[in-house]
Amino acid sequence: MNAEATPIPDPTTAGKIMLVGIGPGHVDHMTARARAAIAEADVVVGYVTYIKLVADLIEGKEVVRKGMTEELDRAVSALEAARAGKKVALISSGDAGVYGMAGPTYEVLFQAGWTPDDPVAVEIVPGASALNACAALVGAPLTHDFCAISLSDLLTPWPVIARRLDAAAAADFVVALYNPKSGRRTRQIVEAQRIFLRHRRPDTPAVVVKSAYRRRQTIHHTTLDRLIEADIGMLSTVLIGNSATFVRDGLMVTPRGYANKYDAEHETREGEKPGRSLSTGLLGWLAALREQAAQGHTVNDLACLYNLPADYIAATLADTEDGPAADTEDTEA
Amino acid sequence: MNAEATPIPDPTTAGKIMLVGIGPGHVDHMTARARAAIAEADVVVGYVTYIKLVADLIEGKEVVRKGMTEELDRAVSALEAARAGKKVALISSGDAGVYGMAGPTYEVLFQAGWTPDDPVAVEIVPGASALNACAALVGAPLTHDFCAISLSDLLTPWPVIARRLDAAAAADFVVALYNPKSGRRTRQIVEAQRIFLRHRRPDTPAVVVKSAYRRRQTIHHTTLDRLIEADIGMLSTVLIGNSATFVRDGLMVTPRGYANKYDAEHETREGEKPGRSLSTGLLGWLAALREQAAQGHTVNDLACLYNLPADYIAATLADTEDGPAADTEDTEA
Repeated sequence: MNAEATPIPDPTTAGKIMLVGIGPGHVDHMTARARAAIAEADVVVGYVTYIKLVADLIEGKEVVRKGMTEELDRAVSALEAARAGKKVALISSGDAGVYGMAGPTYEVLFQAGWTPDDPVAVEIVPGASALNACAALVGAPLTHDFCAISLSDLLTPWPVIARRLDAAAAADFVVALYNPKSGRRTRQIVEAQRIFLRHRRPDTPAVVVKSAYRRRQTIHHTTLDRLIEADIGMLSTVLIGNSATFVRDGLMVTPRGYANKYDAEHETREGEKPGRSLSTGLLGWLAALREQAAQGHTVNDLACLYNLPADYIAATLADTEDGPAADTEDTEA
Repeated sequence: MNAEATPIPDPTTAGKIMLVGIGPGHVDHMTARARAAIAEADVVVGYVTYIKLVADLIEGKEVVRKGMTEELDRAVSALEAARAGKKVALISSGDAGVYGMAGPTYEVLFQAGWTPDDPVAVEIVPGASALNACAALVGAPLTHDFCAISLSDLLTPWPVIARRLDAAAAADFVVALYNPKSGRRTRQIVEAQRIFLRHRRPDTPAVVVKSAYRRRQTIHHTTLDRLIEADIGMLSTVLIGNSATFVRDGLMVTPRGYANKYDAEHETREGEKPGRSLSTGLLGWLAALREQAAQGHTVNDLACLYNLPADYIAATLADTEDGPAADTEDTEA
């Protein structure tokens, strides 16, 4: 693999693109494969800030430093070097697949006519993304269902982002906001807060983590209504809890389930037999649904009761009537 | 740190709980810190399957193997050992914070009266979660906003899960389904498919990854309408693409943005000046919104046009009229 650059690649000396997720940025949190991929690379390509994070590992290598907006350029540089027979490590912070270089690289590869049979091999090295790193530092906020939403509107129209924020807030996801704010892009986080406040309590826990596991790491606990007062920048990730998330002793924790909460909520609702628990999951819910339908509740009643689309309720009821009675309960966590 | 178990812990010989995310399960994809945490542990606690994945690293250590449903038991065992002055590595596959042991452990710690000032220290070691590992193996599916949803309904009522599936599908998130199916829990994935088909095309790319980066790894590409025919089990993660996700040469890729798609869509819509692009993000959208309002379009018209809540449109318009004119464009990716 010490071949000089040649215009036509020979399969036996062909190059390789390794898309390396280096994790939050401290070498301790880099995987063995990420480290090995950088070690075996002839060329290291990346955003200047990320290159600095792996400075100790790249001595003697050819290094291509690019600006933040030059994502496609980085991929083009990587492909050029790989076509010339080099092994290239293309560095992403966090995970290469999560708002990282995997996407732009495949765009460039496909446009260049690359296929998996090409002499240039491609390997993606997964890593812990910013949401994993931030969660580890603040407690256990991602113990239940979550979303990642980027507030960068350069390639995504704001209505698409706004609809996602609204859906995530309404359906009670824990949310990680990537790219929440930059020097010139300041209003997106204000709009995000406005949308969340349509569905979540003002005192919903939120946390702003800056430079997780790096030298200038800061962790700022706040609440949804005060979120925009926090110091948020290009190196920040924002986590917003769901309706059950709490902060205790400086730790942000989302309980694993809703069983108790939902039971309590349900005792006050109409149209149910007292003492009957609906919180036993799908099979228990289907049984209750059949019973309620048999008692004369309409599909629209049930859609209102469960806050689910009427056509979904109708389709599920129809399927349940025809299908075999399912009455085993699951014992798995 | 070789102290024998003592009933009352002495701070100088106090134990530690390390919540270790070991990544997908191959040592190459474990972080240096995860490896070091296991190395320095006196006791290793975990689900039997995960203990097997780190078998090479735990020789000579006390090992506590637990069943899948014994999450709280695992945390209790860890706390008991730590109170006795031991260093305990509590193993999670993937990331300890994502459907992992971080949640149950803080539940147990708080119930036991633990606080961060306690002699027993707690450290969470982040790792790549299943969605990161699966994405790395199949291409670049998570290049845009995504959700993780667990189909396990043991602690979460089905209507909560169903609402999340519906919201994620409607708002065009890429979705990773955790715990999609088990031997006895088979209908949840059928319901998930039904809900997704309300919003996504039947040929939406989906992929089932089993045992990512482990010996028996399988990758099965399919489409939303055929998803339930796939072999899905306890060790599977399911990824469902968004409306722009495509498969090319066996690689599943989600483009980074919607700019082009949205432009094309918009050219056919009413109420806009021809040739005006609305796809330039928040500031461009706000300018268009003001203009459309000035032309006499009502808030309800605009809510329909953009598929956003009317109260959000009204609040944003009100804020825009009062606030300083923001007409700088962002140059960041």
